[in-house]
Amino acid sequence: MTESDLPVVDLTPGRWGDPAHPVELPAAALDALKHLGVRRPAAAPAKPADRPGLTAAQLGVLAGVVGAEHVATGLDARWAHTRGYSTPDLLRHRAGDTSDMPDAVVYPASHDEVQALLTACAAHDLAVVPFSGGTSVVGGLAADRRFVTVDLGRLDQLVEIDEVSRTATLQAGVRGPAAEALLAERGYTLGHFPQSYEGASIGGYAAARSSGQSSAGYGRFDQMVVGLTLATPRGTIELGRAPMSAAGPDLRQLVLGSEGAFGIITSVVVRIRPRPAERHFEGWRFEDFAAGLAAIRRLAQDGPLPTVLRLSDEAETAVNLADPDVFGGGSGGVLAIVGFEGPQNPTTAEVLTAAGGQNLGAGPGETWRAGRYRAPYLRDPLLDEGALVETVETAGFWSRLPELKAAVTEALVKSLTDQGTPPLVLCHVSHVYETGASLYFTVISAQTDDPVAQWRTAKSAANHAIATAGGTISHHHGVGTDHREAYAEEIGPLAVEALQAVKKVLDPEGVMSPGVLLTSS
Amino acid sequence: MTESDLPVVDLTPGRWGDPAHPVELPAAALDALKHLGVRRPAAAPAKPADRPGLTAAQLGVLAGVVGAEHVATGLDARWAHTRGYSTPDLLRHRAGDTSDMPDAVVYPASHDEVQALLTACAAHDLAVVPFSGGTSVVGGLAADRRFVTVDLGRLDQLVEIDEVSRTATLQAGVRGPAAEALLAERGYTLGHFPQSYEGASIGGYAAARSSGQSSAGYGRFDQMVVGLTLATPRGTIELGRAPMSAAGPDLRQLVLGSEGAFGIITSVVVRIRPRPAERHFEGWRFEDFAAGLAAIRRLAQDGPLPTVLRLSDEAETAVNLADPDVFGGGSGGVLAIVGFEGPQNPTTAEVLTAAGGQNLGAGPGETWRAGRYRAPYLRDPLLDEGALVETVETAGFWSRLPELKAAVTEALVKSLTDQGTPPLVLCHVSHVYETGASLYFTVISAQTDDPVAQWRTAKSAANHAIATAGGTISHHHGVGTDHREAYAEEIGPLAVEALQAVKKVLDPEGVMSPGVLLTSS
Repeated sequence: MTESDLPVVDLTPGRWGDPAHPVELPAAALDALKHLGVRRPAAAPAKPADRPGLTAAQLGVLAGVVGAEHVATGLDARWAHTRGYSTPDLLRHRAGDTSDMPDAVVYPASHDEVQALLTACAAHDLAVVPFSGGTSVVGGLAADRRFVTVDLGRLDQLVEIDEVSRTATLQAGVRGPAAEALLAERGYTLGHFPQSYEGASIGGYAAARSSGQSSAGYGRFDQMVVGLTLATPRGTIELGRAPMSAAGPDLRQLVLGSEGAFGIITSVVVRIRPRPAERHFEGWRFEDFAAGLAAIRRLAQDGPLPTVLRLSDEAETAVNLADPDVFGGGSGGVLAIVGFEGPQNPTTAEVLTAAGGQNLGAGPGETWRAGRYRAPYLRDPLLDEGALVETVETAGFWSRLPELKAAVTEALVKSLTDQGTPPLVLCHVSHVYETGASLYFTVISAQTDDPVAQWRTAKSAANHAIATAGGTISHHHGVGTDHREAYAEEIGPLAVEALQAVKKVLDPEGVMSPGVLLTSS
Repeated sequence: MTESDLPVVDLTPGRWGDPAHPVELPAAALDALKHLGVRRPAAAPAKPADRPGLTAAQLGVLAGVVGAEHVATGLDARWAHTRGYSTPDLLRHRAGDTSDMPDAVVYPASHDEVQALLTACAAHDLAVVPFSGGTSVVGGLAADRRFVTVDLGRLDQLVEIDEVSRTATLQAGVRGPAAEALLAERGYTLGHFPQSYEGASIGGYAAARSSGQSSAGYGRFDQMVVGLTLATPRGTIELGRAPMSAAGPDLRQLVLGSEGAFGIITSVVVRIRPRPAERHFEGWRFEDFAAGLAAIRRLAQDGPLPTVLRLSDEAETAVNLADPDVFGGGSGGVLAIVGFEGPQNPTTAEVLTAAGGQNLGAGPGETWRAGRYRAPYLRDPLLDEGALVETVETAGFWSRLPELKAAVTEALVKSLTDQGTPPLVLCHVSHVYETGASLYFTVISAQTDDPVAQWRTAKSAANHAIATAGGTISHHHGVGTDHREAYAEEIGPLAVEALQAVKKVLDPEGVMSPGVLLTSS
């Protein structure tokens, strides 16, 4: 089974993934939770209560653009578009908290309808939050005032394939597996497989500068985009007349990562590649994280890079060890996953061996591959059991990574221990560059009585550690509302002012995702 | 001899290159000029006449920051900082036209001095044009009002090398060969070798999104930059905490390509690589340009890419044929240059052979390599003889390249023929991407009585053809003042307004390179 065979998942609100394929916690995990002091919460999930939405006149404005049948006002539709999939989002969902619920959900069918909607919403002071996959984990679907959700699910077309240039024009609402299935019919792949793949969409990939598990081979999504169309309240911007240009700043990179704050990306032109005929995944063992880091840095700087390259630290490897299939039962050390989409390059193995790596064969690689989208499924049963589980990610230059990793780990451990809930902190590298790499942390502890506040405190400590140790506040999750203040600190007040000025030009009424990326002025 | 052995050239104002190594036109070229109707102009170059510069009070503002000994007001210094090296620039230089001459030249020694200068100039309404290599060919050193030139030549330091992350921090005024020599001492290379290499600088590479002859292997300069420091009239912006990030838009790409309109880039952090131990260059022959284009597209899309990949069209190849060393005396066909810095990959040759290429061996490759920076030297003796010679460049997606090439060629031929000076139009591809490539045209004709107006008409026709056929107005020369209107058309009025808004935040008094990139508001 390859990515193009995976179904687009109809996400259950408040729980990740395909409800037909839930994940049960292994017994070893339940035991481990006990050691962390995790107790199953007494309170059952609360049902959301409805609250008044738009006036008839406001609904008329929306219906005037898309037709009344494409404006949903019922509780179910609005609740299903409430927030994304961060742990605080899931916890608030369980609490029936409707504070971030849209007042209506609108379903435009084309770029022109999106454009007309934004013009109309600006004229009537209706705030808008775009929604395509709905998989934000950084509060990207919230706003700082009441809003209408624009669901892009009907913009689901592969518009064009240019086989000579190897580009495809995809609409924003095409979800990950649908994009792969459409391209596979013509023999192509996008090669973009983030962990949110089953639910995420082209528009979200672009708006939040997504990076997928095959980034070593295929690059990040912002490196795949060669053209895009942005609808803003002031009109449409089309960018990308060539792969690269020296005609002024690369404005594509100003729109990518703008997270709905400037407008709605309705389609992108992306680089595509022929589907690989073969795939190989294998596991490698290194003595410790430092040795593994040196080995993958060798590949990132001197090549040859595989398509997938990941390295777990000792703690993450030990947790994986609970499944003996993953690590072959060896004791200690760290696990790397090396994957080739396309023919295997034997030189990669030579470099890893020379760097002290031990080839564990295809077993651990194929186990990882089979479970590559399953990790987020674990969070719901963990929350059910009363565990707090969340992720934190960053990136930095190679020379700073050891310090960055230590600082973030220490901040999380200290903050949660101080709150009486000592955590387990796991880490891996999953995206490498010549000059640096990403760090991805998974945190598990017992919940306190107020897990949302508990995590807010821990996350704030992690953010501070990232800033102090010289990392970026996000390598691939984005800014949303959760990272807004940390982002402002990262780029500084003058750069924030420049972005605010761009927003003011494109969205003078401030109706686009207000509070996302930038503080509303 | 490698790039790090080349000297930094003290450019003679108005003539390109090292005056110690002028180029003489071969006899065959002189014959060819006769066929184009070229006649040696009667008028000798005119001497520039001085005109009043700044007031004593204004000079005091500048001297207050950098010291009076670092403010030059003499005609020689100001004339040496007048314009760049486009053909209209050279022609106006020959005419002694001082209309774009700065009122003074200031030489700051540090970022802090640059920052203080910009603050002071904004406060006293003195327009500023940054100058580092001074090699603009798009009018990037002109302005739409009188101005002071900030020469960054004293910011000439390699500040730091991070060998673990393989990055170097280089100041803006470090010129190409100096950067390579500094890095070579530590065993590294930047790998950035534009044709302007002898004169161009790090700051110019960054500000104008330069691309070098080894771009297939090393990438463009905007892909090498991982961090930068920008001084603006409002203060300093520092960007780049990680190789890549999802924290909002990639603002580095908003500064790269801003050409002095937002401020002055005072240093960049760039990716570096170990110096290659070996280099190989060879020539390949293809039946025609279409066959050659298909072959290099194969390499760009499926690999393996060499470090240098260039393809001349029939006309350019035929002109090269005048030197039998270059093409081995073969008749017809087109010439490609394939260069490896580092070990040669035999698969590249297999791909080219399978695509119908004939390996001409190292001869033509080494001839190209030896002369790779000499082509611009030819322009001065050609102008001396009365020829009009200039270049036009663009880029587009592979599927559009044939039409784009035909449209630009036809526009240039028609415009110049209509003016009574039928031209020779040569073309090559020198930068390839998975989804497209650059096109670089060289135009030679006789001069009319007003060659500046003659070229303006031809260039305008070429710009229109580029826009109509779907190319970008510049792949690697930039916007400057020459492409400003075409650039505005390319990105559209709303994107222009967004850039103007960014400029207004960073440069509210409009003192930074007024008229460059954007029309002064």
